[in-house]
Amino acid sequence: MKLVTYQDRARERAARVGVLVDEQVVDVERLGQLHQADLPSTMLELIDAGPAALALLKTLISAGRAAWPIGAATALSNVRLLAPIPRPRKNIFGIGLNYVEHVAESSRSLDTAKEMPDKPVVFSKPPTCVIGPGEAISHDAQITRQLDWEVELGVVIGRSARRISEAEAMSCVFGYTVINDISARDNRRAGQWIFSKGQDTYCPMGPCIVTADEIPDPHDLDLSLTKNGELMQHANTAQMYFKVPALIADIASAMTLEPGDIIATGTPSGVGAGRTPQEWMVPGDVIEARVEGIGTLRNPVVAI
Amino acid sequence: MKLVTYQDRARERAARVGVLVDEQVVDVERLGQLHQADLPSTMLELIDAGPAALALLKTLISAGRAAWPIGAATALSNVRLLAPIPRPRKNIFGIGLNYVEHVAESSRSLDTAKEMPDKPVVFSKPPTCVIGPGEAISHDAQITRQLDWEVELGVVIGRSARRISEAEAMSCVFGYTVINDISARDNRRAGQWIFSKGQDTYCPMGPCIVTADEIPDPHDLDLSLTKNGELMQHANTAQMYFKVPALIADIASAMTLEPGDIIATGTPSGVGAGRTPQEWMVPGDVIEARVEGIGTLRNPVVAI
Repeated sequence: MKLVTYQDRARERAARVGVLVDEQVVDVERLGQLHQADLPSTMLELIDAGPAALALLKTLISAGRAAWPIGAATALSNVRLLAPIPRPRKNIFGIGLNYVEHVAESSRSLDTAKEMPDKPVVFSKPPTCVIGPGEAISHDAQITRQLDWEVELGVVIGRSARRISEAEAMSCVFGYTVINDISARDNRRAGQWIFSKGQDTYCPMGPCIVTADEIPDPHDLDLSLTKNGELMQHANTAQMYFKVPALIADIASAMTLEPGDIIATGTPSGVGAGRTPQEWMVPGDVIEARVEGIGTLRNPVVAI
Repeated sequence: MKLVTYQDRARERAARVGVLVDEQVVDVERLGQLHQADLPSTMLELIDAGPAALALLKTLISAGRAAWPIGAATALSNVRLLAPIPRPRKNIFGIGLNYVEHVAESSRSLDTAKEMPDKPVVFSKPPTCVIGPGEAISHDAQITRQLDWEVELGVVIGRSARRISEAEAMSCVFGYTVINDISARDNRRAGQWIFSKGQDTYCPMGPCIVTADEIPDPHDLDLSLTKNGELMQHANTAQMYFKVPALIADIASAMTLEPGDIIATGTPSGVGAGRTPQEWMVPGDVIEARVEGIGTLRNPVVAI
C-alpha cells in the first residue's frame, strides 16, 4: 500500500492517514468505521498499531471500491499531501558517505576521507526540519551560499529494536519513503553536520510511505534528482555500501530504534558540492527527488 | 522553584511533576486541585502551560505548608526521582568545545582543532539516551573501551524561538538542570559524534530543573564531577566561551527551538580522554555531576 498523510481541503484541516489507490485517497479511520473496525487516524498511530492493523487495512482496501464507505475516498486533487510523518517523535537518523562515488566526490570537494568508512557514518536531523511535498525549502542568504540537495531512500521503522542481528533487521521495517537531505555545505562546524543539515525545511519527505511488503528488495531501486528539470543525480540503491539491514542493526546496537523512526540511507553522487563547477540551489529552483516504486517529491526553493 | 519528575513509591507508577520544598515533594496537579486551579501533571505540560501557570504555582507554593492539600506532599525519601524530562520530544542539542581548557585537552587527545571555534559546535543526542538520578550508565564492552564523562549545565527552553536576538534569548529559558554528557570516545565516525554520545543511557539528567527566576546569572555557577569520590572536573560556567544567550540565538537562527527543548552547554576540562594517563569509566564506578544551585546527579556505571 501507498500510505499518505493528507489534509482534506473541503472537510477539515487535521492531518489524517490515508491509502492512495489510483487517484483516490481512502481515509483509514473512516474505512475502518464502516467495517466496525478500530483503525487509527494518523500515520504514527497506524505504525504503533502493528502488523494486525496493517493486515486488516490491506484486506479492506483489497476488497475494492465497493467496500469503501461513502465519504471515505477523496480525489487526490482535492487533498493536500503532507510529509507522511509530519512530526517525527525524535531526530531523523541520517547516513553519510554510503555510496562509493559520492565518497569520492565528497573527498574532493568537502573535508571527508577518500576511503570508505569502516562503520556507518550516522548523523541526525531534528524533527523540526521535516516538510512535505510542495512545501518550500528555505534559502536564507544570511546563513548559506551553498545550499545542496541529496536524494535518498528513507526507511521507516515499524517496531522497537535494540541489539538485533542483520537477519532480524528487515522485520523492523514498516516501509519506505523518499527523502531529500538538504545541506548548507558552508555550515559544517568542527565537522559536525547537524547545523548544516538540520535547519528548518531541510528534510523534504514523501509523497508517501510504501509498505515493506510491496518492496521485497530495497536494494534494487533507481533513484534520481532533477533541478529545474535537469538530471543531477541518478543511481540505484544496489550501490549502497552499508545495506538497510546493516544500518538498522548498527544503529540498534547502541541506540534503541522505535516505531516511526526514520533512517535516511545516504545519497549517491551528483550533489552540487561535487560538481565542476560547483552548483547550489537558489530561490526559484524546483527540485524533484524520485525513488522507483515510491514516487516523486517536488519542492521549490524560496528565499526567507 | 526546584521542579522534579517523580514516581510515588506507595501510590502509583505514573511520572508526575512536583516541587521540591525542603525534603518534601509537592505534587503540582494536586496542589492546583485544592485551589480550584487547573495545573498539569507532567513537566512538559507545565512548560507548555507557560508563565501564568508557573506564576500561579509559585504563589501556591509560597503560601507555605498550610496551603498544601492533604496528600499533595510526599517525603522525598518515599519517591523515586526520574529525569526532569524523561522523554524529550526531540533530540537534545549538545555544544562541543565550549570551555577553553577543554578545547586544549581535546586537541591533544582527540581529533579536534587547537583554536576556539568561530561558531558554536552543535551536535545532538536522541531522546532515548536520557536517564534519571540513580539510573545506570550502560557499559557495553563490545562497543567501547573509552567511556567518558562530561558535567554540563543544561538549559531548558520555555517557549518557541526562531530568529531571535541574543537580547531576547534569555526570555526563552524555562530553567536549568545538570547533564552528564557521556561519550564513547572510540565511537566517533568520520568525526560525527551522535553514535559516540547518543547511545542509550548516555544522557543522565537531573536531579531537578531550577526555574530561571532563581538563577539570575547562569554564568556564575561552579560545576564539578567526581568519579568514586575523586574530583575529575571543577570549573565555573563563567568560563563558557559561547554564553547561553549566544547559544540560543545561534541555534534558533536556523532551527526552531520549542518548549521543552534542552541544550547541554558544553563541558570544562578534566574529562577522561584529556588526562595523563587517560582514564575511562568502568563497571562499578559511581559518577557524581554537580552544578551549584541545582544539585548533584549521581549515576553508577553497569556492564550490559
